[in-house]
Amino acid sequence: MEKPYVVGIDIGGTTTKFGIVDARGTIISQGVIDTQTHEKFEMFIDELHGALMKLIDAAGGIGKIRGIGVGAPNANYYTGTIEAATNLRWKGTIELRKLVSEKFGLPAAITNDANAAAMGEMLYGAARGMKHFIMITLGTGVGSGIVIDGKIVYGYDGFAGELGHVTSVRNGRSCGCGKKGCLETYTSATGVARTAREILENSDKESLLRKLPIEKITSKDVYEAAIQGDEVAKEIFEFTGKMLGEAMADFVAFSRPEAFILFGGLTKAGSLILDPIVKSMDENLISFWKGKVKVLFSELKESDVAILGASALAWEL
Amino acid sequence: MEKPYVVGIDIGGTTTKFGIVDARGTIISQGVIDTQTHEKFEMFIDELHGALMKLIDAAGGIGKIRGIGVGAPNANYYTGTIEAATNLRWKGTIELRKLVSEKFGLPAAITNDANAAAMGEMLYGAARGMKHFIMITLGTGVGSGIVIDGKIVYGYDGFAGELGHVTSVRNGRSCGCGKKGCLETYTSATGVARTAREILENSDKESLLRKLPIEKITSKDVYEAAIQGDEVAKEIFEFTGKMLGEAMADFVAFSRPEAFILFGGLTKAGSLILDPIVKSMDENLISFWKGKVKVLFSELKESDVAILGASALAWEL
Repeated sequence: MEKPYVVGIDIGGTTTKFGIVDARGTIISQGVIDTQTHEKFEMFIDELHGALMKLIDAAGGIGKIRGIGVGAPNANYYTGTIEAATNLRWKGTIELRKLVSEKFGLPAAITNDANAAAMGEMLYGAARGMKHFIMITLGTGVGSGIVIDGKIVYGYDGFAGELGHVTSVRNGRSCGCGKKGCLETYTSATGVARTAREILENSDKESLLRKLPIEKITSKDVYEAAIQGDEVAKEIFEFTGKMLGEAMADFVAFSRPEAFILFGGLTKAGSLILDPIVKSMDENLISFWKGKVKVLFSELKESDVAILGASALAWEL
Repeated sequence: MEKPYVVGIDIGGTTTKFGIVDARGTIISQGVIDTQTHEKFEMFIDELHGALMKLIDAAGGIGKIRGIGVGAPNANYYTGTIEAATNLRWKGTIELRKLVSEKFGLPAAITNDANAAAMGEMLYGAARGMKHFIMITLGTGVGSGIVIDGKIVYGYDGFAGELGHVTSVRNGRSCGCGKKGCLETYTSATGVARTAREILENSDKESLLRKLPIEKITSKDVYEAAIQGDEVAKEIFEFTGKMLGEAMADFVAFSRPEAFILFGGLTKAGSLILDPIVKSMDENLISFWKGKVKVLFSELKESDVAILGASALAWEL
């Protein structure tokens, strides 16, 4: 193959990771720079270009690269721009796709993190060979990438797939988006911590978690208590799984995916979270779908997903 | 054009309608037979063939027909079969697409009623020119046809788009599907009648509806009371619109349609139902979508939709 590689770039709030990836999903070289050093986006791109060209030259030069995929907050696949991303310092509309493409002289595509992760799973991970699946990322928030007929669903304006903000509980917990009761207020890492605080404050149950200052409890603390057999910690994961499973049953009614692929910190809890998810989803599915929708964990290394996901976009260029 | 027409066939529980349609969506001739006359499906197809061939011959012969689209309960676009449709007398798996195609010597495609209606709106109706919209049919039940990138969403098994069975109220009203709290138990015509009974039984409010035997109240009665200014009847439509708008906001988070197209008996209530739907949807949307998603009524005549929708499938053959 004349152009055996693609480049994946993940622009995060703190660091920007980049790497060169082959068709099997092997990252053959990678690097990282700080995202927030430069006030001007053009200077950021200059630094990124310098760092990345070293890797590209070592891999045989620009002629070996098919294209560049970029994952970034609020990135719009259609317009190629990022707009008003709250955790990036560059304000206004940034012509990300155009600037990257011109700088490197290569075709480029951009999308948000969760959609990039879904592309990565489809090409290299747990969704290989699947044409219909939904990626759900359980991190600080809840993100989603929906794949139908082998394509990411971008919708009319490029921002479809905001499943973290469907309403799980009418007039429920306040969400950062301004709404109440969003799925992500219950099933993100921060949602798990909120559930922990609610249960501890509203009951007298004994728990290892009571040794911690209540405002500082994290989902990691809950996990560590749960694997030691703590009943309250297990109850927290059961509640979290129940809420997610209920929402997933509704998502099945929408696009009937072959599988859900779950990714992110909460999946470290393994069967503690997976079992209640599957039970709750099946209880809420229409009868002819019960037991037929797979729920899988990501097969990609957490440290690789950002680069692999972004790179996956570039194979379509 | 050598083949200027398509055929649309709608197999309903009582009657089967069929017609010849041109590219503008004009039904140039149509007919109807009883669906349930024949115990054997082959005999039904024979009768349908006889009746339809008269129309085809009058339109210039089989050479003028591009293909046949069929709408039928439980029809699976992928497999071309109908399976265990509760309101048809033929049991087991029926090779509908194959039998129709062989009988007429024309290519054929099949889908369910709501998907056919969505195709009809896209080709001939309110969704002309749209690539992203969701059709919601508000009849005895609530059906849906989801269009993304100009294509119906069939999902992994062909049965995606069951939006009438997302859960609106956890542990809510019992649904015919076996679940509880499904959207269709609140926003179908029968849902409206259930709401009427609940409100009348649980309050002393005066209402024209109290003149009717409570078990016999229909959504039509509620409509007629509402246009006479009956407060309870208006409250019933407001509640119905609120429930539907809440669900629609979640659907936007999924696929971000340009518009919803509403069809069916309840849309006769006009702004009595539309205003609360739009208000409730906007209240529940993420802020950047508020005011941006259209809610439209179908532009097709109710008597034409079944044939037009089915016929729309055939242009893709």
